[in-house]
Amino acid sequence: MKVTIKDIARECGLSTAAVSMALSDRPNRISQNTRDLVRMTAERLHYQPNQAAVSLITRRSKRVGIVINDLTNPHISSLFMAINSVIQKRGYHLLCHVLIDCSENATEGIQRILSSDVDGIIWGKPIKESEREKLQVSMGSIDIPVIAMDESGFPCPGADIVFDYEKAGYLATQHLLEMGHRRIGCVAGTADFKVTIDRLCGYRRALDEAGVPFDQRLVYDGNYTLASGRDSLSYLLGQKVTAIFAMNDEMAFGLYQSARQYGIRIPTDLSVIGCDNVPFGDTLEIPLSTLNVPTEEMGRVIGMKMIEAIEGEMDFLPGGKRIRISYEPALLLKGSTARIQNDVQM
Amino acid sequence: MKVTIKDIARECGLSTAAVSMALSDRPNRISQNTRDLVRMTAERLHYQPNQAAVSLITRRSKRVGIVINDLTNPHISSLFMAINSVIQKRGYHLLCHVLIDCSENATEGIQRILSSDVDGIIWGKPIKESEREKLQVSMGSIDIPVIAMDESGFPCPGADIVFDYEKAGYLATQHLLEMGHRRIGCVAGTADFKVTIDRLCGYRRALDEAGVPFDQRLVYDGNYTLASGRDSLSYLLGQKVTAIFAMNDEMAFGLYQSARQYGIRIPTDLSVIGCDNVPFGDTLEIPLSTLNVPTEEMGRVIGMKMIEAIEGEMDFLPGGKRIRISYEPALLLKGSTARIQNDVQM
Repeated sequence: MKVTIKDIARECGLSTAAVSMALSDRPNRISQNTRDLVRMTAERLHYQPNQAAVSLITRRSKRVGIVINDLTNPHISSLFMAINSVIQKRGYHLLCHVLIDCSENATEGIQRILSSDVDGIIWGKPIKESEREKLQVSMGSIDIPVIAMDESGFPCPGADIVFDYEKAGYLATQHLLEMGHRRIGCVAGTADFKVTIDRLCGYRRALDEAGVPFDQRLVYDGNYTLASGRDSLSYLLGQKVTAIFAMNDEMAFGLYQSARQYGIRIPTDLSVIGCDNVPFGDTLEIPLSTLNVPTEEMGRVIGMKMIEAIEGEMDFLPGGKRIRISYEPALLLKGSTARIQNDVQM
Repeated sequence: MKVTIKDIARECGLSTAAVSMALSDRPNRISQNTRDLVRMTAERLHYQPNQAAVSLITRRSKRVGIVINDLTNPHISSLFMAINSVIQKRGYHLLCHVLIDCSENATEGIQRILSSDVDGIIWGKPIKESEREKLQVSMGSIDIPVIAMDESGFPCPGADIVFDYEKAGYLATQHLLEMGHRRIGCVAGTADFKVTIDRLCGYRRALDEAGVPFDQRLVYDGNYTLASGRDSLSYLLGQKVTAIFAMNDEMAFGLYQSARQYGIRIPTDLSVIGCDNVPFGDTLEIPLSTLNVPTEEMGRVIGMKMIEAIEGEMDFLPGGKRIRISYEPALLLKGSTARIQNDVQM
């Protein structure tokens, strides 16, 4: 097994941070005696420093690049604030790169962030499956840690902080099935995003288990914006749905807007469930039932893992494998779903 | 009058951008002939380069620091995205510094952003009047442009992009008065912020004009968060108000949450008006009446002025005076206010 900084720390009776500093070429508060002890121990154990980690210890910009798509989405802005609160306390700043669409300029986006000299990158934008490979290749030349909110497969040191969106889709749909609904619409997010595909898989798994055949016509292609949720309602009502799973709360809010215009009462005429648990949902006359995503906790962990990776306290997995930390959804019923009234309501 | 880059540009028949580049020491696409022409013209006109602008032309990090307090506020996140869209297109990135409270660490915050080497600073956080002077002093040593969302009085080159919050408070209150209300509560934002004081002045001016005495007990001290809006309702109902002006939409959303719990109907039992016009207000069963703030337009102008300031295309005003650009509110009535029913409703 690969010898890490932790092994040296254990041997010397020091913290991993002290070992990092002792191995660094930068002036710091480590005495020459300790420095010698650490270096001799490292040699004895045949310690092979992780080049990325070492270079970060020796030359730090105190900047962390963050790639995001839309800060006006309250889920993303909460995440951003949680990440920032951790890294700013440690003396780092976030350098933002907004990337709406990966297709054309993902590589360019990475290069521009890198040209601004950052110590690490937080990849907070969902990745399209069709672009993942290309992106993985372009990330291959990066020797700084990348923390991704996805199972990124990036060939760089770092961690993937993931949320079980498949289970979120499953729990939402299962709940609607338990309320007697059979024609359950789905307002999908941007097609081909892993986070969209996962939720759709969960939706299908719940239908399968209940013996309800999957019907592609009940899936509306949205893009995670309020407007796309608003636009979906007339289509889905035309498909005679009695309940809708919106893949995020924003699109569910759009359903509320349209429902009011059409005179559709939630939940009497139509059950609606979202995903994310953004605070606004509680402001609605009928608060939105949703899946809780531990956004702040995830943000804090992303921030901490980034600092650990930059400061050499994170043990990088052998063979370039990435650490994976997963979070689970929890169903929050607040009143926007109800038992089906009769077979067809509209 | 001070000779500026614009004068040289006019003399030479070139764009200000070309003149900036010609005066720069950096390699660029300007031919030696043009370069000579520009430099001779500059000499002939006794052009004194603005040191801040010149140093920026010659050594640019392509980073712009931005100081904000809360990105989870949809008004702030929209502004951030609008600023970012302009500056990112020009090859710059935003470096974020979140500053919750100016009181202790404003100077430190500025120093930390500066130590990360930025070409300019966007000050997007409201300033407390009691701290303004201290902040102005600490900003005095900065020789890069500062664009502030406030009448900052910062002694640095740049611009103040302001919104007429006094008029917003005036228009909101005037509307409630026209609907026959006399006991009009006010959910105030963070005390001592200029943007809070301005709105309160507008509220008082409208009351004065209508001959309604100002009553301090009808003003609840909130802090621009949804929670503070929620907390304010029981207090204000105790003061027998029939209408409430919330200084931002977030706090108005808090009023909606509490109103539902108390069984208070908006607008039948209580008129509510906010400020900002964040999109979520339209999702409510009774959409929130509010004052429109041209957030995206303001964000774009902030971004453009920053680029102009960095790239030497902005004519800095003589005597260190700052450019001031002001935006006006517009009343948007959407249904959350109604004529008073009888003298006392509750």
